[in-house]
Amino acid sequence: MSSTIRLIIDCPDKVGLVAAVSEFLAQHSVNILEASHHTDKQQNRFFMRHEIVAIDEHLSEQTKAFNEQEFREDFAALAVKYEMNWSLKNACNKQNVALLASHEAHCLNDVLHRWHTGELHCDIPCIIANHEKMRQYADWYKVPFHHVDFSDKPRAFAEINALLHRYNTDVAVLARFMQIVPDDLCQEWAGRMINIHHSFLPSFAGAKPYQQAYDRGVKLIGATCHYVTKDLDEGPIIEQEVMRISHSDGVEDMVRKGKRCEINALANGLRYHLEDRVIICQHKTVVFD
Amino acid sequence: MSSTIRLIIDCPDKVGLVAAVSEFLAQHSVNILEASHHTDKQQNRFFMRHEIVAIDEHLSEQTKAFNEQEFREDFAALAVKYEMNWSLKNACNKQNVALLASHEAHCLNDVLHRWHTGELHCDIPCIIANHEKMRQYADWYKVPFHHVDFSDKPRAFAEINALLHRYNTDVAVLARFMQIVPDDLCQEWAGRMINIHHSFLPSFAGAKPYQQAYDRGVKLIGATCHYVTKDLDEGPIIEQEVMRISHSDGVEDMVRKGKRCEINALANGLRYHLEDRVIICQHKTVVFD
Amino acid sequence: MSSTIRLIIDCPDKVGLVAAVSEFLAQHSVNILEASHHTDKQQNRFFMRHEIVAIDEHLSEQTKAFNEQEFREDFAALAVKYEMNWSLKNACNKQNVALLASHEAHCLNDVLHRWHTGELHCDIPCIIANHEKMRQYADWYKVPFHHVDFSDKPRAFAEINALLHRYNTDVAVLARFMQIVPDDLCQEWAGRMINIHHSFLPSFAGAKPYQQAYDRGVKLIGATCHYVTKDLDEGPIIEQEVMRISHSDGVEDMVRKGKRCEINALANGLRYHLEDRVIICQHKTVVFD
Amino acid sequence: MSSTIRLIIDCPDKVGLVAAVSEFLAQHSVNILEASHHTDKQQNRFFMRHEIVAIDEHLSEQTKAFNEQEFREDFAALAVKYEMNWSLKNACNKQNVALLASHEAHCLNDVLHRWHTGELHCDIPCIIANHEKMRQYADWYKVPFHHVDFSDKPRAFAEINALLHRYNTDVAVLARFMQIVPDDLCQEWAGRMINIHHSFLPSFAGAKPYQQAYDRGVKLIGATCHYVTKDLDEGPIIEQEVMRISHSDGVEDMVRKGKRCEINALANGLRYHLEDRVIICQHKTVVFD
Repeated sequence: MSSTIRLIIDCPDKVGLVAAVSEFLAQHSVNILEASHHTDKQQNRFFMRHEIVAIDEHLSEQTKAFNEQEFREDFAALAVKYEMNWSLKNACNKQNVALLASHEAHCLNDVLHRWHTGELHCDIPCIIANHEKMRQYADWYKVPFHHVDFSDKPRAFAEINALLHRYNTDVAVLARFMQIVPDDLCQEWAGRMINIHHSFLPSFAGAKPYQQAYDRGVKLIGATCHYVTKDLDEGPIIEQEVMRISHSDGVEDMVRKGKRCEINALANGLRYHLEDRVIICQHKTVVFD
Repeated sequence: MSSTIRLIIDCPDKVGLVAAVSEFLAQHSVNILEASHHTDKQQNRFFMRHEIVAIDEHLSEQTKAFNEQEFREDFAALAVKYEMNWSLKNACNKQNVALLASHEAHCLNDVLHRWHTGELHCDIPCIIANHEKMRQYADWYKVPFHHVDFSDKPRAFAEINALLHRYNTDVAVLARFMQIVPDDLCQEWAGRMINIHHSFLPSFAGAKPYQQAYDRGVKLIGATCHYVTKDLDEGPIIEQEVMRISHSDGVEDMVRKGKRCEINALANGLRYHLEDRVIICQHKTVVFD
Repeated sequence: MSSTIRLIIDCPDKVGLVAAVSEFLAQHSVNILEASHHTDKQQNRFFMRHEIVAIDEHLSEQTKAFNEQEFREDFAALAVKYEMNWSLKNACNKQNVALLASHEAHCLNDVLHRWHTGELHCDIPCIIANHEKMRQYADWYKVPFHHVDFSDKPRAFAEINALLHRYNTDVAVLARFMQIVPDDLCQEWAGRMINIHHSFLPSFAGAKPYQQAYDRGVKLIGATCHYVTKDLDEGPIIEQEVMRISHSDGVEDMVRKGKRCEINALANGLRYHLEDRVIICQHKTVVFD
Repeated sequence: MSSTIRLIIDCPDKVGLVAAVSEFLAQHSVNILEASHHTDKQQNRFFMRHEIVAIDEHLSEQTKAFNEQEFREDFAALAVKYEMNWSLKNACNKQNVALLASHEAHCLNDVLHRWHTGELHCDIPCIIANHEKMRQYADWYKVPFHHVDFSDKPRAFAEINALLHRYNTDVAVLARFMQIVPDDLCQEWAGRMINIHHSFLPSFAGAKPYQQAYDRGVKLIGATCHYVTKDLDEGPIIEQEVMRISHSDGVEDMVRKGKRCEINALANGLRYHLEDRVIICQHKTVVFD
């Protein structure tokens, strides 16, 4: 049985593009399990995600038996013609998800539990935190734990970056990390560093969003899962969740209710990322959910 | 500028099927605007919807210029091979939507308003009701109105059926019609008669669903938009909406709140149907929203 | 049978306040149908809403038979002692709701329909619009219609204010009016002028919120029902609604989906206001729903 | 500083009832922090919940200083007069919540995490499970764990009942326990045994609700938190949650998404119960949230 392969494409929109890719797939003996398209008319860009699986039998005289190496080489030619960004990924391969945390444990607990029970398809090579308190979670799940001292911030981030590299990190998740990531790190991990912000962005960006929401008197609060960029809380949004509140909810109630939003938005956002369902288009995302 | 065409396919699942359709489209000089797939593994059935538009230039030597008649004829051959149910529809063509109503006006008012303002892409050739009260709506929107006398039910339904035919009805909408449609009419209009039921089916099927919901003490109420079949309230579901309630909501509050669910579920369900986004698969639906 | 009376109180929080009001009500032979409290700890302010009905029999020797005039006079003394803002309203009395509209009809249509069918307990003495197009709605519902020419804005608003007074307006509803109300009118109608803004405030305040939402790439859009103040889109929020969207929704889809949010947020917000469920506390609201 | 006390009342509705209770509270030198009323007109029953706190100073000559013992004795007389079920609870006292689990860990993990981080105000004296697998959670949280062997069901339930008593259980939570509780246990723990059912009841009661939901083709799935009664899945509902699904969700996707509903419905339902916000009225609940 062949394994599922994901083909992700992002390129300038052109007439005949879908036809060309379809023809290519038809000729390379793969079966399409799932196909998603999107055209961003404003950017004039086209996005495509396929879940494919090799088929054994020949379909017609115009097709050839599937061979990943050959498939890649052939596709590269097509990609050049259409100026594609593209990637081909084996769905079986688990990505390394490094978790960065502070002293709020709810997102960390949720991600670890879903990983532990097999719901989240990834490896978690390490937890990095600026609080010793999180060591208990790491130890129980038998995940290496690194406490980073933030008295010297530049050194702390240098250490974090070194750790991310040492553990072959594919994606870093800021599970309520609550530290502003320096520009060079944002740059280096662009599209591979996910944050959960505890407000319905762009409302209440910055510090203490629940206090801001309370002061403004909104009737719904939320959370936003987004990629980290050097412009704080301005990164491409992957997922958002909201919850109804009322005048009787104080800031602490909002914190409690909001945690549900944070957990759910991060859970979905991270899963979409790990299943290669998210394509970044400038400061926005296409999410083939 | 060519108009958008929708190709809807439903057939037994087979290896090579997507490839064959893709190849076909690639060879017939159409551009794919939107493509949606689904495989029902339990029924081993495959569903596909394409929004395509003819392209003028030849793409390669293997393609031919688009010609709808030729496209149909060529596709018919493919369809036979794969035992497809299929249809090809021009998105510009407006369907005739006949509205059946009783004395509750909220769904009728909403559909008419959205049609009148151009949001709903269809024609409304007639309103049929068992209450004179609805005539005011029909008159204002300048839609022919037919009051049907239900003292003799079989005759009433015969009259309704005759009216549906006279107005070349494509789809009949029971906008809170509140009459049980006889089996033969269900059969004749199978897949072309849409009902809005004022409960979250399968909960509270049958009469007085809000009273049933009140008696059971549920914390959410809802509405269900579904195709009419001879098994009352058992037809394929297109769309559902729910709303939170509490112990302080009496039956009348539920009726008031539930109307919002009914309006929204019908609005979405009818739009999906008119855009050929719904494919019926036995007693369930595939909705490519 | 006596009619339902609403007693609304708002005052500095003090120990013994609830006890004093309870004792007062107990001594005045009224039955409490609904009671709601709230203490805003930040402002140290207390809010209270009672739905009461006079009872005929004497309860004890400490009580006296209900008499509205006497009740008012007695309560006035208590109100002075506790520095209360208070009002006593008969639930049977219908408020006059003037509708201001522009060229978008969905909110207007919804409010009119719910008023017409008796769901909304109020009178609608007039519709004022800067588009002739809305006359058709007014005429059908037999509501006086006034087209105001906006080529001279100050004169237009003077005319509107005169109309609001002429019709003894209790509350003015900006049903997608899309004109910035001048400061003096905001001041005069403070707490009695309700707007529906087509975004989830404070996100995307100002013009073209759906375009802003599209550009930012949010995953949920919304609408906000709020009191009008001179700080545009900064008034106290009564109700908010949101709806999920995706990358495939263009600005027009957002407009279509957002209309549902606008209609629902306005429907709830206006009902809360008419049932005296909203108390303004500086730039926030207490909503006893 | 005096602690918060909750007074919960449930009795036949009578004119003058609220007045009598208000007068009583006013005379016993307590300050009302939160007050909630409800009248069930169908059952002609009245429900009331007060959060009160003793005040030190005398308010008037008609009041006496607060004394809990005296308060209870005085109130008992009033309670007899109005045929009240009533209870007076100190909000500081933590209830003992025994957790019953099987092999699905998500609800267990969530309750334990929220208890561990102090969000859930209770004690967890023990975890009882029919799977050894859950021991790891119990051990980490340092909660006594009891594995019960279900090869002999009556003996297993006798053992469970003995454990519940040994640990002075106030409320037993079936965190996806997936065993039918025998009638005598239901009777004994009536109103003190909470279940989370993985469907939106009354839809899909009984076994395999996600499979049933899949087969029926509903567009929303849900979960229901309810009190256990001898009529399986018919107990009074405390809280319900729903989530949107589509044709592309298989049974496993529903299971994954549904877990979120289960976690959230149980989290709210349990919190309402622990804060004495739920009053059972025959087969329904009043929830003062």
